[in-house]
Amino acid sequence: MKVMVDLCIIPLGVGVSLSPYIAACKPILDSAGLSWELHAYGTLIEGEWDAVFSAIKACHEAIHAMGAPRITTTLKVGTRTDRDQSIADKVSSVENKW
Amino acid sequence: MKVMVDLCIIPLGVGVSLSPYIAACKPILDSAGLSWELHAYGTLIEGEWDAVFSAIKACHEAIHAMGAPRITTTLKVGTRTDRDQSIADKVSSVENKW
Amino acid sequence: MKVMVDLCIIPLGVGVSLSPYIAACKPILDSAGLSWELHAYGTLIEGEWDAVFSAIKACHEAIHAMGAPRITTTLKVGTRTDRDQSIADKVSSVENKW
Amino acid sequence: MKVMVDLCIIPLGVGVSLSPYIAACKPILDSAGLSWELHAYGTLIEGEWDAVFSAIKACHEAIHAMGAPRITTTLKVGTRTDRDQSIADKVSSVENKW
Repeated sequence: MKVMVDLCIIPLGVGVSLSPYIAACKPILDSAGLSWELHAYGTLIEGEWDAVFSAIKACHEAIHAMGAPRITTTLKVGTRTDRDQSIADKVSSVENKW
Repeated sequence: MKVMVDLCIIPLGVGVSLSPYIAACKPILDSAGLSWELHAYGTLIEGEWDAVFSAIKACHEAIHAMGAPRITTTLKVGTRTDRDQSIADKVSSVENKW
Repeated sequence: MKVMVDLCIIPLGVGVSLSPYIAACKPILDSAGLSWELHAYGTLIEGEWDAVFSAIKACHEAIHAMGAPRITTTLKVGTRTDRDQSIADKVSSVENKW
Repeated sequence: MKVMVDLCIIPLGVGVSLSPYIAACKPILDSAGLSWELHAYGTLIEGEWDAVFSAIKACHEAIHAMGAPRITTTLKVGTRTDRDQSIADKVSSVENKW
């Protein structure tokens, strides 16, 4: 089952500058072979369910290992059986209606 | 790694009555041995990371098998290394400050 | 337009203990005359759109005034025109399918 | 109070093709003078709190008027008092750590 995820990881107890923690997820997503794209309030990821959620778990583990005692993450998770849909498709399907 | 999740599964393309689909998740969570609690806009689940996310995947698969062509899910996911925290603890830690 | 909201406010830059900040929202919701209910990963609120979002804004302002330099909030927002639905209804409509 | 929002509106009871409903939000955001940017799982919006939430309410009203009997929306809402931050800043602050 393919999945598209919008991932927003918030480490707590590390002050207000979260970007070093978010940046630490990049090599994890890359080494998992996932397709992803950063936006201003999260990271879009697409791939097979198990690969995507293993990578998200690895991100939590890495951020805890960097010293964050607590993490709260918000995820949107989309699956569909009627057809494939990529990150690029979803944007253009809206833009085509403008 | 233990995790607390707030899960809100929204099947699309099945009309406005979503409760039969949500109800189908109950036996999945129970047979996974997870502790969970329903609220009006989601289901709180606690357990080990892999068990929780396997169950959520099984919920998506079950709801697609019931005929929903598309699902969009919102998740909040909390982990912490400083101490254990249960669903009941989190509510009482706020109520103690009132 | 009536709305049901699931509100999860996360103050950043204040350490890992967030409950004093969450507790500060109680008098705001009460004085706005809103119906609400705490759960382990958020607060369910129902009321008229403008009243609910004015109260959420007041919560952000109060938490900043308590010293939190940054806040990230996750909201689920439900509206429907086909019928009224209360916090209690939504839980029982699922439980009736078990 | 300035706010950055990540808005994901899901109309229910209208089938699986949601893009016409999402596209209907564009003129609302534009006529409100808000700065916004579409991504594959939502729309980033920045502006003053009241202007942003008035526009989101107008989006719900417009989508109901198009025939959707029920809407469930997921929002992330960021405010900060320590400094200004734009949509572009947030992406580059992560990219600078790679």
